[in-house]
Amino acid sequence: MINPETIWQNLSAVREKAPLVHNITNYVVMNVTANALLALGASPIMAHAAGELDELLGIASALVLNIGTLDSCWIESMREAALIAGKRGLPIILDPVGAGASRLRTETALALMRIQRPAILRANPSEILALAGASCATKGVDSAHSVEDAEEAARSLAKAFGCVVVASGATDFLTDGQAAVRISGGTPLMPRITGMGCTSTALVGALAAVDDAPLSAAASGMAVMKVAAEMAAEKASGPGTLQVHFLDALHNLSQEDILQRLKLVCG
Amino acid sequence: MINPETIWQNLSAVREKAPLVHNITNYVVMNVTANALLALGASPIMAHAAGELDELLGIASALVLNIGTLDSCWIESMREAALIAGKRGLPIILDPVGAGASRLRTETALALMRIQRPAILRANPSEILALAGASCATKGVDSAHSVEDAEEAARSLAKAFGCVVVASGATDFLTDGQAAVRISGGTPLMPRITGMGCTSTALVGALAAVDDAPLSAAASGMAVMKVAAEMAAEKASGPGTLQVHFLDALHNLSQEDILQRLKLVCG
Amino acid sequence: MINPETIWQNLSAVREKAPLVHNITNYVVMNVTANALLALGASPIMAHAAGELDELLGIASALVLNIGTLDSCWIESMREAALIAGKRGLPIILDPVGAGASRLRTETALALMRIQRPAILRANPSEILALAGASCATKGVDSAHSVEDAEEAARSLAKAFGCVVVASGATDFLTDGQAAVRISGGTPLMPRITGMGCTSTALVGALAAVDDAPLSAAASGMAVMKVAAEMAAEKASGPGTLQVHFLDALHNLSQEDILQRLKLVCG
Repeated sequence: MINPETIWQNLSAVREKAPLVHNITNYVVMNVTANALLALGASPIMAHAAGELDELLGIASALVLNIGTLDSCWIESMREAALIAGKRGLPIILDPVGAGASRLRTETALALMRIQRPAILRANPSEILALAGASCATKGVDSAHSVEDAEEAARSLAKAFGCVVVASGATDFLTDGQAAVRISGGTPLMPRITGMGCTSTALVGALAAVDDAPLSAAASGMAVMKVAAEMAAEKASGPGTLQVHFLDALHNLSQEDILQRLKLVCG
Repeated sequence: MINPETIWQNLSAVREKAPLVHNITNYVVMNVTANALLALGASPIMAHAAGELDELLGIASALVLNIGTLDSCWIESMREAALIAGKRGLPIILDPVGAGASRLRTETALALMRIQRPAILRANPSEILALAGASCATKGVDSAHSVEDAEEAARSLAKAFGCVVVASGATDFLTDGQAAVRISGGTPLMPRITGMGCTSTALVGALAAVDDAPLSAAASGMAVMKVAAEMAAEKASGPGTLQVHFLDALHNLSQEDILQRLKLVCG
Repeated sequence: MINPETIWQNLSAVREKAPLVHNITNYVVMNVTANALLALGASPIMAHAAGELDELLGIASALVLNIGTLDSCWIESMREAALIAGKRGLPIILDPVGAGASRLRTETALALMRIQRPAILRANPSEILALAGASCATKGVDSAHSVEDAEEAARSLAKAFGCVVVASGATDFLTDGQAAVRISGGTPLMPRITGMGCTSTALVGALAAVDDAPLSAAASGMAVMKVAAEMAAEKASGPGTLQVHFLDALHNLSQEDILQRLKLVCG
């Protein structure tokens, strides 16, 4: 059973253990996801050179792959990192940014999932529909579909790949193919900041580093996003101040904040 | 005639249509220009892989090219993107960062303009003088010349390439070779934040996506920069807070803000 | 003798001369180190293309090399830039991010130091221990050792390479192999923002551009970091607001701030 206490215990474990989260991610969000991981209490590594992946993954506790600004070099780094993570038993968290917007993105995301099963796939509804093979017109890297539209596709993907799938939106939908979790909250301003989706993927990575159960790890990551964003929105007057207060809120998040604010429904 | 009403209508069109703006830009500003486009109401794509440019430009409404951290791979991506944008009839907005500081930059910018005529060139005075072939000693990517120094060079470039040229500074000078627009405002702190020039280029891209007339599109982009920066400066106590409040101001900009604050002169 | 007056004179020289600081640095911090250099009063260049390094270094006053997201292309750029800076007599400031975490990082940092002696090496204790050949288990790019642990290694490295070594931490330790400077202050929140170490390296680069004495240049850079961070911490409620106020503080730093707050001990 995933409840506010689970979330708090997982967040506390991140703060105590400061797990190393290895990220091969896109240029746009490298700084902000590193900062979000630090604000949460984790330790980020951003590195992609083939010649050091095995050593660095040897000291990491989770691998986050994000195809946001992919090209042939970065795809090769992600492939190699996925294989190494597989051998080392590290959880992989995949963010298939823009899947459906180009064949390269859809195919790269699916290829990475086939090379090594991710523990968790975190995506927006359009990306999930694209990966599930549904015919879908995507609008760039934003989402043109509601989370509800993607629930069945999320379940199908989760079953097909044996992973947890997180469809994020105003209410996040998380499933391992059977069980489901829904988390609401946050603020409508979140999509007006670049990389909030990528940030949630990175935070899920930090949680997966301390919680072996992918569904509760994913729920914990998405839950702290929603609660911290809601707290930040109360102090923000636009997307600029929201981003700044979001990092403060992540860093200051207390058990009481989670208990009072979390809107999470299982099943 | 370009007036505050034009600017407001264009800004409203961006907010309503949320046009996709494809950016091939430099590493330093990817995050901040994506955030500025989102704050304005547009949808940014940052992508450079050759294998997906045709598909992504197929769903985009404008192409922003910025040579700030150029190398041979990125130059090739920009060349290909320019050709595709040309075939698809998308407006190209070029930021020739550092032209004049190295032959590679001057030649790359001119080569991109020759491959496919840009709708709008947005640059600082030194870059414009360098591109216009004037003998000019540039100081890195900052501008050692005043906008006034570059007015004739801007007119020459605009006529030679059949594009609108924007020379930005304390008072921006915009010309299509004949007509001219001058926009003042903003804050002297703007040059103390990296990427404010690149941000104005990106915003001009969003406006060019909704306004087929390059001069009024360019004026609209530069106008919202000036007004939002002026509003942000009133709340800022340095470059850090200025950047944050600038994004808030872009997001919150009202018709009244534009009517009251815009200092725009045509002719 | 390095004292608050030295620091203030050096900071004033940066603001007056606005020296160009050429950075070949990592993707994560490009934006924040450019902003810190601008807030301080310097002019940053971020460029790595082989074909323009000689021209750009011809107008620069210092070269900052940072291996944070190294790969074979970037290593080659850094090697070439180091050679050019050597020929031109520019001070090189090296940040060996993650040395000890992978052989690639340790060897790349040492190779760069052997190609061309840096004026200043700025690193965390674990990186210094790794470079000094001490057996040391590093924890990613964070520091698992205290500055005290690394003092002897810092002295050894400084003597072996004829450079100044800065071991940064709660109290920074700087040495040229003989003389030593210790600077304390700042805030415990600094390690919760990505790139604060890289930022200090960049600021040291700006100071080295105006002060030929590497030890006082390095001390000046680390001193303004500590003072600005301490001032920012008084206004911050977490790492998000700290980062924003840090840039404001750098920009607004007065002689009185330095005289009242600086905690610097020589010898």
